[in-house]
Amino acid sequence: MRPGFAFSVEATDPTGARAGHLSTPHGAVETPTFMPVGTLASVKGVDVGRLAETGAGVVLGNTYHLHLRPGERIVEAAGGLAAFMGWSGPTLTDSGGFQIFSLAEQVKITDDGAAFRSHVDGAAVRLTPEDSMQIQQSLGADIAMQLDDVVGLPAEPRRVEQAMQRSLAWAERCLEAHTRPDQALFGIVQGGLDPGLRQASAEALSRMSFDGLAVGGLSVGEGAEAMRATLSATMPHLPTDRPRYLMGVGRPIDLIDGVTAGIDMFDCVLPTRCGRTALAFTFSGVLKMRHARLIEDRRPIEEDCPCPACRHSRSYLRHLFLAGEMLGPILVSLHNLTMYARLMRRLRDAVLAGRLGVVAEQLRGPIEGEAD
Amino acid sequence: MRPGFAFSVEATDPTGARAGHLSTPHGAVETPTFMPVGTLASVKGVDVGRLAETGAGVVLGNTYHLHLRPGERIVEAAGGLAAFMGWSGPTLTDSGGFQIFSLAEQVKITDDGAAFRSHVDGAAVRLTPEDSMQIQQSLGADIAMQLDDVVGLPAEPRRVEQAMQRSLAWAERCLEAHTRPDQALFGIVQGGLDPGLRQASAEALSRMSFDGLAVGGLSVGEGAEAMRATLSATMPHLPTDRPRYLMGVGRPIDLIDGVTAGIDMFDCVLPTRCGRTALAFTFSGVLKMRHARLIEDRRPIEEDCPCPACRHSRSYLRHLFLAGEMLGPILVSLHNLTMYARLMRRLRDAVLAGRLGVVAEQLRGPIEGEAD
Repeated sequence: MRPGFAFSVEATDPTGARAGHLSTPHGAVETPTFMPVGTLASVKGVDVGRLAETGAGVVLGNTYHLHLRPGERIVEAAGGLAAFMGWSGPTLTDSGGFQIFSLAEQVKITDDGAAFRSHVDGAAVRLTPEDSMQIQQSLGADIAMQLDDVVGLPAEPRRVEQAMQRSLAWAERCLEAHTRPDQALFGIVQGGLDPGLRQASAEALSRMSFDGLAVGGLSVGEGAEAMRATLSATMPHLPTDRPRYLMGVGRPIDLIDGVTAGIDMFDCVLPTRCGRTALAFTFSGVLKMRHARLIEDRRPIEEDCPCPACRHSRSYLRHLFLAGEMLGPILVSLHNLTMYARLMRRLRDAVLAGRLGVVAEQLRGPIEGEAD
Repeated sequence: MRPGFAFSVEATDPTGARAGHLSTPHGAVETPTFMPVGTLASVKGVDVGRLAETGAGVVLGNTYHLHLRPGERIVEAAGGLAAFMGWSGPTLTDSGGFQIFSLAEQVKITDDGAAFRSHVDGAAVRLTPEDSMQIQQSLGADIAMQLDDVVGLPAEPRRVEQAMQRSLAWAERCLEAHTRPDQALFGIVQGGLDPGLRQASAEALSRMSFDGLAVGGLSVGEGAEAMRATLSATMPHLPTDRPRYLMGVGRPIDLIDGVTAGIDMFDCVLPTRCGRTALAFTFSGVLKMRHARLIEDRRPIEEDCPCPACRHSRSYLRHLFLAGEMLGPILVSLHNLTMYARLMRRLRDAVLAGRLGVVAEQLRGPIEGEAD
């Protein structure tokens, strides 16, 4: 990796899972790590002090969103994303590819780039690989992502292959356009559910000078089984000396699967989005916080959890949601982020002990169910 | 006051302002004090840890709201309001009188009590002085309030007098019905803007065995000048050895006026409500956080403020509001609560130094304007 950055693998489990250490100009994190999503330079409902207490390391910002609001010029003038949002740790910006796929209107994607209308005000916006690099260099996160062409699944094989090839071409252009020395740049593997395309994409990207490789285009409707199979087909073709990042994933069970497959970094809106909609994650399964059975449940969400929500009873938290109090979403978001960070820690410890297979199996059943 | 409670006046300023000390079974607070409003057992957007950091002492709950959701039985089973919401300091519940006036539908008030429909689900609810006492004793706050008959202003003189007399009759019934020894009970002066009615109400209540006296029925549309005049007419008729509480007030300038008039306790939703609508209070005036002039303002809301919002720039906070991020309301609510607590502290220090008149005059001008 470039100066100011370092990635080392401390231990590799028989499963292929890794325990590592990633250093950036804004600090280091232990991997595997889950990165909370701060779409608009704010992890929804969570102040940065509380965010640090959840155990968060890297925080994600969204290039597409920040380009529209407040604009990268404002963020750059403030000293970059971390300074703008008051986060003292590392940050990462995605390239905008996924949001163009999921949010933008009247999207036209050509080999040159994407042209679309803003979901905020309908304004015409253009985003080429060079634009994405320019914006991300202004946003100034520690890690930037190449622009990729994301397709929803299922999709026509021809479209999947086109998107993969186009993403490779964009990868070269991003490397060419990216000049900021204190910012790492990751490539993104595409190829849908096709093992051959995934292999070709991974091998081509591995030959380029990216600081890390991401697996993109998953968690877009293909289901858990297909995602697992695609990961298995992809991972052997990724270099072992650079961090591997599974984008936009996922549920606790997906994180267990991803770590087992050898993934080092994850991001997802689920902990905060579910927090806002009253779904709490625990090691014993999910808990629907509006459920009538919690009306006098004096237990915390999770007995041994150190988060601010778990200073309260389930009964109180349920009341907050039923009464429409914003403190409910705030507290359960904090709980979920804390739970994700604790899950990562447990998986990492298991890798260090060479016991990930056993630990993952123990966690898997309870975590997928509903908590009592 | 009853066992477990104590109120002492440490200093009285030439203006009549007091610096005091109020002890309750859940801890002591220095007065004058501002009590944040936790309507539904939650100060909107603020977790109890952050709330304590603002300098809050007593936290208010609303009998009317908590009776409807979650119901006092749930709160009582959890160990009372403070335990239910996880607040380790003192709490106070209002009687429901003001919410019946401001929120309930199809209200019928007779000498017996109020009958109305819930603003939540339209259910028929009855609230007599005895009901209010029973509910408040179940809620178990350190301080309960008598049920009063609140009228909006302007109002017919006959209606104002009726409400005052009825509130007095209800005061007697509340004292009769209130039996919980570890809970203080305050009476509420009514009488609109009529100095004679206010005097009569204050004198009658002062002869009763209330632990403190509140001035109610203000901040209901009468304007600041009328409120000041009414306070001046009321205060000389209140006992000096018991705490005096001005209900539902108000803006920083109103707190300065109230303290100057000899008030010890205040409550108001303004710091959090304005926080949610992007209005920040500072010692240099208000700041409209959505204003375009803040777009690149790198200063915090207030230079010397220790709150979590003031770790950020105005530019960032403005962005949060414009992007609809809930962190904006959260942070500015925290700032406003912190500012109110700091204002109370400055006024108290001024009373202790016998300089309240000068300090209040210095604060008054800047605090009423718009911050630069």
